[in-house]
Amino acid sequence: MSDMSKVYAVIMAGGSGTRFWPASRKRTPKQLLPLGGGSKTLLAETVDRLAGLVPPENLVVVTAAHLLEATRAVLPKEATILAEPAARNTAPCIAWATWSIMARDPEARVLVLPSDHAIAAPQDFVACIKRALEAAASGTVATIGITPTRPETGYGYIEVGDSVGQGVRKAVRFVEKPNRERAAEYLASGRFLWNAGMFFYRAGDMMKAIRTHLPQLAEQADAMTKDPAGVAELFPLCQSVSIDTGVMEKLDSLYVVPGDFGWNDVGSWESAWELGAKDAEGNVVPEGSVLIDAKRNLVKLLGKQQGKTVALLGVTDLVVVETDDALLVMPKERAQDIRAIVEHLQTAKKTELL
Amino acid sequence: MSDMSKVYAVIMAGGSGTRFWPASRKRTPKQLLPLGGGSKTLLAETVDRLAGLVPPENLVVVTAAHLLEATRAVLPKEATILAEPAARNTAPCIAWATWSIMARDPEARVLVLPSDHAIAAPQDFVACIKRALEAAASGTVATIGITPTRPETGYGYIEVGDSVGQGVRKAVRFVEKPNRERAAEYLASGRFLWNAGMFFYRAGDMMKAIRTHLPQLAEQADAMTKDPAGVAELFPLCQSVSIDTGVMEKLDSLYVVPGDFGWNDVGSWESAWELGAKDAEGNVVPEGSVLIDAKRNLVKLLGKQQGKTVALLGVTDLVVVETDDALLVMPKERAQDIRAIVEHLQTAKKTELL
Repeated sequence: MSDMSKVYAVIMAGGSGTRFWPASRKRTPKQLLPLGGGSKTLLAETVDRLAGLVPPENLVVVTAAHLLEATRAVLPKEATILAEPAARNTAPCIAWATWSIMARDPEARVLVLPSDHAIAAPQDFVACIKRALEAAASGTVATIGITPTRPETGYGYIEVGDSVGQGVRKAVRFVEKPNRERAAEYLASGRFLWNAGMFFYRAGDMMKAIRTHLPQLAEQADAMTKDPAGVAELFPLCQSVSIDTGVMEKLDSLYVVPGDFGWNDVGSWESAWELGAKDAEGNVVPEGSVLIDAKRNLVKLLGKQQGKTVALLGVTDLVVVETDDALLVMPKERAQDIRAIVEHLQTAKKTELL
Repeated sequence: MSDMSKVYAVIMAGGSGTRFWPASRKRTPKQLLPLGGGSKTLLAETVDRLAGLVPPENLVVVTAAHLLEATRAVLPKEATILAEPAARNTAPCIAWATWSIMARDPEARVLVLPSDHAIAAPQDFVACIKRALEAAASGTVATIGITPTRPETGYGYIEVGDSVGQGVRKAVRFVEKPNRERAAEYLASGRFLWNAGMFFYRAGDMMKAIRTHLPQLAEQADAMTKDPAGVAELFPLCQSVSIDTGVMEKLDSLYVVPGDFGWNDVGSWESAWELGAKDAEGNVVPEGSVLIDAKRNLVKLLGKQQGKTVALLGVTDLVVVETDDALLVMPKERAQDIRAIVEHLQTAKKTELL
């Protein structure tokens, strides 16, 4: 970590998603929304957390072509943006970004981060990143595993084994989303961490790993690096595969840095409520709201709706989200069912709302 | 009823009120809102119901000075509008209007109606009006009493006695809002009708009654008729008193026409839900709403919010009202408590929302 100029961040910001409708749309997915409790987008918060660790000119943000302008708007002007012409999961994304970085600096040390998570203790997070980069300095890819706080069935886990240094463990295996019983066992064992999709490596090491485990992708990345104008044609031909199953699970050795920094994957409007600043009654609402017998509600106003006066009378545990063209009301506990609304809009061909 | 040109309607449209916040404001009170289930304001619906019964040039609409323009906008251009410089309850309102009509036509037959009620069966209503005008033709003031359908404690009642003709009874007495037990007795007795504030008389008879029971008001009405420019000064000096307590309760004789025409006083957002067109699940919502496990909700969009797509997921019996500057969410059963929100806004001096 002595030479910051060699540290690059690949921020994966191409995600779409329906779980934050009506705020999230094709053109404003989750990472471009202020869902972390502050006024900045999750992507901007992700970038902010790296200040002092990654020089702005070493930020490589991979997004989707249709999100290019909106993504650029929240990034420092020095950042590089790679716009994927098609969604091909994380392995092609990381390959393209890693090859690009390698072309700039053969000694680059890379951290790969999702753009749409929230972190309550950014300083602890940065300490984990530094540890993971150090661990990866010897040639072994590293990841951060989140210390679980509940028997979550919605995440993948990483089983860890022996310690290989202060705060660094060997990965034993990746496991898919478990059922409730299995998740409880994982939590009790203390040997399972949540897979948060963060990876740390020297650029050359990842190139080698991809060349070994996804040789076709490596060739495609070679070609895209040789002919950047060909990306539009070449990228969509890449196999859609995650870096986890395509590479990470196949590595002979992988290091895991256990992390406990208030990580939240911001998976639903309920998470947004958890992350928000609450009043004494647990409401996360715009300033100036009139609240009478109202408890634990989330109200989110977006676009020109901001500044509107919200009055809640006698309601609890509701989610109310308003954009300029849509209004959603549901109980927090139904947050996972929002997909049904989006499907309805798709069936009704209301594409302007998607 | 042979000569329609002698029939005049006094429509009392000066009311303010807070029960429909955020839709109702100082400058757009209840009668200027489309709360009757259709797209027209309650005042416009009131006028529409009189088509074929009262010529447009015989409409006399009494409103408040600050509502003059908004009121004019929903009325036929032939209507006369009297703008009260101050609110003085119904007796001064009716006196001023009656004196004005008398000045135009000493043989005028007058019907006095509130402007902010809804009526499901307008033809039955018109039949009652005709009957009441006929009853009043002999010199006795008449009213319509609504056949009660529940032990309502929010209305005044009129006890009726002997029949004085087909569908016309003698009034025995007016009674104030009863308690629950008394209201149940009234309902069971069959002798009590709801007082809906509708009156029918020959202009000269009402002048005589006011001269007898409110002699000072009669003198003030004389003066205002002689000097219309003096209304601004004279009207605020009138005693604030209702026509019920000031005149009606003191009359030697009053006729009552029992009416059963789906009358609704539109007293709260819950009434607005009752009046609205419902889907199979009892929701009163804008066209194109996305409803999943949603039952018996009322959603009202006003101003530029109209056209917004509403999505309700897993909510029941909610009231959601949106204007360009405010959003209200509450259970229907809390509709009566909305005053608390308005009081909060008053205390917070958010006058732009009142």
